[in-house]
Amino acid sequence: MTPMTETERDRDRIQSIERGFAVLLAFDDEHPNPTLAELASVTGLSRPAVRRILLTLQGLGYVEGGGGRWRLTPRVLSIGQHYVASNALIEVAQPHLLRLAEQTHESASLATLDDTEVVYIARVPVRRIMSINVAVGTRVPAHATSMGRAMLAWTTPEQIEQVINSSGMRAYTPQTITDPARFRAELRRVRENGWALVAEELEDGLISAYAPVRDQSGRVVAALASSTSTGRSTAARVEAEVVPLLLRTAEQISTDLGHRAAAPPVVHGRDGFY
Amino acid sequence: MTPMTETERDRDRIQSIERGFAVLLAFDDEHPNPTLAELASVTGLSRPAVRRILLTLQGLGYVEGGGGRWRLTPRVLSIGQHYVASNALIEVAQPHLLRLAEQTHESASLATLDDTEVVYIARVPVRRIMSINVAVGTRVPAHATSMGRAMLAWTTPEQIEQVINSSGMRAYTPQTITDPARFRAELRRVRENGWALVAEELEDGLISAYAPVRDQSGRVVAALASSTSTGRSTAARVEAEVVPLLLRTAEQISTDLGHRAAAPPVVHGRDGFY
Repeated sequence: MTPMTETERDRDRIQSIERGFAVLLAFDDEHPNPTLAELASVTGLSRPAVRRILLTLQGLGYVEGGGGRWRLTPRVLSIGQHYVASNALIEVAQPHLLRLAEQTHESASLATLDDTEVVYIARVPVRRIMSINVAVGTRVPAHATSMGRAMLAWTTPEQIEQVINSSGMRAYTPQTITDPARFRAELRRVRENGWALVAEELEDGLISAYAPVRDQSGRVVAALASSTSTGRSTAARVEAEVVPLLLRTAEQISTDLGHRAAAPPVVHGRDGFY
Repeated sequence: MTPMTETERDRDRIQSIERGFAVLLAFDDEHPNPTLAELASVTGLSRPAVRRILLTLQGLGYVEGGGGRWRLTPRVLSIGQHYVASNALIEVAQPHLLRLAEQTHESASLATLDDTEVVYIARVPVRRIMSINVAVGTRVPAHATSMGRAMLAWTTPEQIEQVINSSGMRAYTPQTITDPARFRAELRRVRENGWALVAEELEDGLISAYAPVRDQSGRVVAALASSTSTGRSTAARVEAEVVPLLLRTAEQISTDLGHRAAAPPVVHGRDGFY
């Protein structure tokens, strides 16, 4: 008997885990209650392979079957809880987000960059102002959304170039900035201002203000956002009333993370991001 | 060469997936940035096994390493997003939760039973009233918490007995009901009332009201909760002002899920759950 080489074992192990996640992630809004055959079709795996993976995931409590169909259990949510629990930023930011939402009577969100995408990591929704779902865990392309642009404004030039290169600056809406030079100029402007305000660029009626959150080393680790609608406010009112609260809250979170501001953030006049 | 039997392959596959999740879940508030050695110690796996799993999880984008330490990435949150996206209940309930929070100016939550635990599946936090973290995905033992008791009140007798047997009715606080007979009587009372109100039983200063959400078949699939504090309200005021809104909202969610109420829920007087 020829023993399996270490490389072959490695490959086997890696593939099983990858396939396990492929099956778990095949459950979505298009396939909320798939059959085994549907899961095989979506993942490209054989039915016997999918069956074995489903039984494993069922044993772990992540899926349950019935009537020939499968569905995710709420235990799946606990996986994300481990990110939340192991991330000091979220715990530190949560009470500040609540206070900001209470002071402004508007939704407050915290997002961070993951590769070339922006991920919402905490959110206090106050009103349903966006037609898109922005629950915690929602990912949006960094180059094409206002939250992404606000977040990118405070990252390293290397990360900005990485986003420009890997995204291909694909247009998602007529408002998407597709010219790299204009994109860099926009980010520069936001960084100089120390905050951003985006009105009705991404979605009719949506006004959002953004400010950077810094860690101990001064690195921007997240963007804090406050969002309202044109039905309830105006860009000028958000700038006058919300932006000062937003900047103060972002500073408080940064301070709680160990950041000591060298100087108060510069707030220019009405030459913002809109 | 003797080929590996199908059974041996099965076992390998299953174990790899289980070990993959074991390593992923080993990241928590006690080990937010573990070393490979720490992960091996927590999971009971060998260092070479943990190393291979980490490289696989890194390839999938769920962990990242640096300086000999590992951490989860926000991509982990997207796993839970698949539960949210594939669950019609959450999508249907979200606007109702927001409206309830807006009408009451208090936090609104939706929870469901998973085995013998209650899981928060949607939440609109308005104020930080609880010292415990009740983010989406948080799990609490069903028999020992007010949300669990409210949720259990509307489930099947079989599920109630399962919780009683498997939990051992372990006391978590002096207020935990540990006597099965008294426990069943409490649940009966809640069910007869059609809603529950728990004041300061679980945590000083916390007042929560609960109502059942039913699906098309009439089965209770979740509990809707509104929570406030004694500093801001009283049990009597919650009963008079919040409970009618809570019952109406729970009914609206149930209607959106396809439930047609045979008769309006019976609301008894001041003989509630407190």
